[in-house]
Formats: sequence, structure tokens, C-alpha cells
Amino acid sequence: MFFELEKKDQHSKARTGTINTGHGKIKTPIFMPVGTVASVKSVHQHELTDDIKAQIILGNTYHLYLRPGRELLKEAGGLHRFMNWDKPILTDSGGFQVFSLSENRKLSQEGAIFKSHIDGSKHLFTPENVIDTQRMIGSDIMMALDECTPYPCDYEYARTSMELTHSWLERGMAHYRNTEPLYGHQQAYFPIVQGSVYKDLRKASAEFIAEQGAVGNAIGGLSVGEPEEDMYEMLSLVNQILPEDKPRYLMGVGTPVNILEGIALGTDMFDCVMPTRNGRNGMLFTWEGTINIKNEKWANDFSALDPLGTSYVDRTYSKAYVRHLFKANEILGMQIASIHNLAFYLELVKQARLHIEEGDFTSWKNAMVKKLLIRL
Amino acid sequence: MFFELEKKDQHSKARTGTINTGHGKIKTPIFMPVGTVASVKSVHQHELTDDIKAQIILGNTYHLYLRPGRELLKEAGGLHRFMNWDKPILTDSGGFQVFSLSENRKLSQEGAIFKSHIDGSKHLFTPENVIDTQRMIGSDIMMALDECTPYPCDYEYARTSMELTHSWLERGMAHYRNTEPLYGHQQAYFPIVQGSVYKDLRKASAEFIAEQGAVGNAIGGLSVGEPEEDMYEMLSLVNQILPEDKPRYLMGVGTPVNILEGIALGTDMFDCVMPTRNGRNGMLFTWEGTINIKNEKWANDFSALDPLGTSYVDRTYSKAYVRHLFKANEILGMQIASIHNLAFYLELVKQARLHIEEGDFTSWKNAMVKKLLIRL
Repeated sequence: MFFELEKKDQHSKARTGTINTGHGKIKTPIFMPVGTVASVKSVHQHELTDDIKAQIILGNTYHLYLRPGRELLKEAGGLHRFMNWDKPILTDSGGFQVFSLSENRKLSQEGAIFKSHIDGSKHLFTPENVIDTQRMIGSDIMMALDECTPYPCDYEYARTSMELTHSWLERGMAHYRNTEPLYGHQQAYFPIVQGSVYKDLRKASAEFIAEQGAVGNAIGGLSVGEPEEDMYEMLSLVNQILPEDKPRYLMGVGTPVNILEGIALGTDMFDCVMPTRNGRNGMLFTWEGTINIKNEKWANDFSALDPLGTSYVDRTYSKAYVRHLFKANEILGMQIASIHNLAFYLELVKQARLHIEEGDFTSWKNAMVKKLLIRL
Repeated sequence: MFFELEKKDQHSKARTGTINTGHGKIKTPIFMPVGTVASVKSVHQHELTDDIKAQIILGNTYHLYLRPGRELLKEAGGLHRFMNWDKPILTDSGGFQVFSLSENRKLSQEGAIFKSHIDGSKHLFTPENVIDTQRMIGSDIMMALDECTPYPCDYEYARTSMELTHSWLERGMAHYRNTEPLYGHQQAYFPIVQGSVYKDLRKASAEFIAEQGAVGNAIGGLSVGEPEEDMYEMLSLVNQILPEDKPRYLMGVGTPVNILEGIALGTDMFDCVMPTRNGRNGMLFTWEGTINIKNEKWANDFSALDPLGTSYVDRTYSKAYVRHLFKANEILGMQIASIHNLAFYLELVKQARLHIEEGDFTSWKNAMVKKLLIRL
């Protein structure tokens, strides 16, 4: 059983569950730190497990395909061994980065031709070969190749794009069934709902995806610039269609508030570069609100970085010290902020899970959202 | 008793000892990781103690004076509390950075006027006020203001400069005696031998320094571009004059080989940015020789980073993985290399100490020097 649904909240669509993988269990709802190119930026692997309490991390197929490359990962025995990470890994398909990073990309029925953002070399991603790549990576959860539509996106483009994503999915599902894992552990394959911000397209896409019978399903193309209400409306609509007994993964989202609202709408899995990327710029998410640690107001605040934080960095370092590190461009500042933010995100979803179990998720969530919107 | 001389090697000038400070004991010979601006770059404080086994770190007065500044450090209760480091700290006087980093510097009998490399603001360092600054920093060992002569340096300049350094020292010693520590722990004050590569100047300077009766003495102005034989010749000459019952600190040196040769010549303390700076560029020092981890030859070498290394990074990460991190410009690569190199330097001086105790230091050192010169 890939996913076990455990507890359903009475006042929202929130639920808890357990995902079972060849590299262990994942308690949902869960946030997945992004380890773009075989490293969660500035964070040691043991910090992910011991300090951040990560249960699963995400790797980007586009980046891993370019560096270190498929053959090297295969020679290493897969990404887990290459980076010495023995918990679950999810990989995206590479599609998103093809559209956001590469140059001269060209879509066709066959797939996506693009030039590497590193050396300009030309490559083709197809629904089939991104599965081959993810087999070589050895991720526990592989994603289907899709086109992530930009925002705004006109209706006709969104519809045509969705149809392309669906036809790619059919080829992908067939290839998935016809190929085997390389390293002895099972690899799940998640299809992705698209359809931009159009209700009828999202509905059609969710129905199509639901029919595939995958062990888990994802929602893509959100948090790409649309108003938050649109995102929540699409998510709500899609989650009502996607099967209840399969985990639902909202890709690339988002702020702590987005995650809590996403959980309330029945979403189980999240990933985002925000905790690490914003952390490297000095933004800290805390239980009392958001801090820009570079601000003058923290210059002589010698109190603990985050008295309510769960990671050792929160108690070891003061606000004044971390501000100093950022002002002096010291790498350690980025390391501390990344650990802090990731630990905060993981504690946030853990607390969400506890409150779903205890039956007071919605009131807790509403109170938390207010706090999370505060700028300290 | 600030310094206890313990064991003297029979075949060289090497010796072991213990330095006693208000923040604990330091077993010599010792290497001090450089924490320029209140952070050993890319290394957490607990990694310094737990993984690297650092016994003392060095802070740069010039950098700390500019950022976070003396007042903030005083408000924090000193550098130890500011950065949450409760082992000993040595600070330099700031003189070296004034000459190497700042703009429009101007020396006079009074002191050194310079412009900040950060914002161009104008400052004056005097023999007295660098002690005041180091009092506010609260370092366990403070250094006297000196002029570090460049290389090459003509005889007249070297002589005049040495005399300036000596006259600054007399003022510094007086000010040191007339001021008190701010945070309740003792602060030692080390004078510095100068004299470029001129034997008579080095001899005169060492004699002058020895007469001051400081609890420890330093040798500056070496490893600034002169041939290594000159450095060793000067060091040998100076160490024969500096009192045997006081620790001898060779400033800013150097390679692992420099350190072993320095120990053989009777030196007890070393600091250098090399393990961290070169580490951030992918150079790894190992017991089998030096590695440029960015080289193609490590691309598919999945063996441990350093099978003979003492830090967990050596066993946790493979050469291929660390090479990948450097090729992909991942911060984690710099973190791993910094921990590895610092742990190597600390293990090197620990092994030197053990071999002095066991009486086979010279033969061990000669064998090690051969290995350390190998490029893998």
C-alpha cells in the first residue's frame, strides 16, 4: 500500500496519512526541501535528518541530467548513494526548468527540445526519456513530463497545452509500466494536473489524471503569478476530483500560509525553494511572523534567533550575530537561515498533522495564518 | 602560569606545551583556524569543536573593528558571547590588514591612518587603541600593533620599520599594563618580531622582543613572498633568541609542510587562511598529498573523500560527489572542503605533538613532508 489515509479533519478537507517508499515512511502532510542538483543548498545531509527533520527531499531532473549527468548517477548506484541520503527522494520531470531556465526551447508532440543554460548544448526531453532519467536517478517518486503554463495564459494556449500534457502522460504511463527500477527499490510515478486558471480545463485535467490510476497525483501550474484566490480555487476544485485515497502533491508551493491553506484544501505534499532561497537573502520565517534579519532593528538584539524555533541554530545564534553575518556576507549566515527556515517548514507541517489528529486544525490554522502574515 | 613547557624533542627544536587561558587550555603545537569577521567561513561553531577539534580560533581586529564594530561587541559582552564560542580566541592587532586591504594608508610615529575597504571611511590605529579594541573584543591573546614589511623590502626600510614597530611596542606594553580586561578573564599580550629577511635585524628585533617579558611572543613578516629557505632561516634564528619558556607564534603560516618545519624549529602556534581559502577553491590537503577536487580524474571516484581523514565529511561524502558540488558551484562543497582541511590541520599538529612525546618526531616529520608535497 503506497498511501494510507489516516485521519480526516471534520471542519476542512485536511487529512493525515503515511506514504510508504523503499526508503522509508513519510508522514503527511509533508514539506520536501529542494535539493536541486544533489544538494539542499548550504545544508549538510545530516542536518537535514537531525536538525531539520526532513522525511523526503526533492531533486530536479533537469539539473541532475545536466550535472552530474545520467551515466555518472547510474555508475554511482543512483542519487541516494551518490549524495549519501537514504531517505526518500522525489524528482520532478525536468519540464519546469526547461521552460524557466533553458534557452531556445521548442515544444512538439514528441517532447521538448532545449539548450542547456550551462553550456548551450542541445537536448530533447520526451515523456519516455525523462522516466529513463528518473530510473537512473533512482528517485522513490518520479514525475510525469508536463508543460507548466505561464501566467497569464490565454484559454486556447492553456487548453492545447493541457492536451499535450495529457498525451505525454499516456506515453509516460505506458513507458513507466514497461520499464523497471534499476536499484531494487520501487519507484512511483505521479501524473500532473494542468489547466491554468480555467475551471473547466482544471476539471477536465483532474478527471483525466484521476482515471490513470496512479498511486499519487500532482497539481502543477499554480503559484506561477496568479492571484492567491485563483490558486486556492483551482486547488479546491482539483482536490475534489483527485481520488481521496491517493496523496495529492501541490508542486512548487509555497509560503507557509499557502501550505496551511493547501493542507486545509486536502493537499498532502509540498515543495518550494522559498525557505532556502529567501533564507539566503536574510528572510526568516518564524512562529511570530517574518523577519528580514538584515534590518537595522536587529543590530543589537542579542536574543536567540528564534526562541520558539526547533533547530539548534535558533538557540545557538542571536539575531544580532546572524544579522552581522549577513551584513558581512559571511556564508554561515546563509547556512543558519537555511537550516532555520527548513526546520520551521517541517515543524509547521508536523504541527498541522498534530492538529488534524487532535481535531482542531481549522482554528489553529486560522490563528497561525494571522501570525504568519505579520512582518516583524 | 600562562605556558607550561612539557616535552622537548631530542633531534630538533620541537617541543610540546600547554597554554592556559580563561577559556581553557591549549595543547601545543597548535593551529588556529581563522575566523576573520566573527565566523570561520562556512563552518558552524559546533563543527569547530566537535568535528575539527579546534582548541582556539583567531579573529581579525581590523575586520571586527569595522564590522560589527567595537561598541556592538562590547554591548554583546565580547566576541565569545557574540559568536557563541567559549574556547580561546586570539586576535591580531589589525596592522596586517591595514597594510594589505585598506586604501590610502599612511604610517606615522603616532600610528596608521587608513580608509576602510568597505566604505572608505577614515580611521586611525595606534598601539594604544588597538589594545582598547582588543579589550572590547575580549580575546584571550591580544597582539601588538606592528608593521608587517612586504617582500622584497630594502634594508633601510626594514630597519626603520622595525624601529617603528619597537617604539609602538613600548607604548603598547605601557598601555596594556595600564588597562584591564572588560569581561572578567585575563588577556595576554604578545609582541611581534619583525626585521624582514635580514639576519642582524631579526636578531636585534628578537632580542628587543625577548626583553619585554611578555607571556608569549610572535614572529611576523614571514611567508610574505620570500623563499622558504629564508623563512626557515629567520625562524630558526629568532626562535633561538626568544625565551624557551614562552610560546612562539609564527603568524599567518602556512602550508602543512611549513607548519611541520616550523614545529621542528621550535614554534608552538600557527594560523593561516590556507585551509579554508584553498578549501573553498577545491584544494584538499590529505595524508597522501594534495588534491584538486575539481580535476576530471575524481569525476567517477566514488571512494570516501579521504579514507585517512578524521572528520565525518571524509567518510560521509565521496570524491565524485564533492567534485560535483564544486563543478555545480554548490555552497556545500566549500563547507565540506573547509571542514576537511581544518580537521586535517588540527590532526596534523596533534600528530606532531604525539610524535614529539614519543620521541620520533623528526623521522615522522621527514616522512610526512615527502607525502605532503605529493600532488594527487
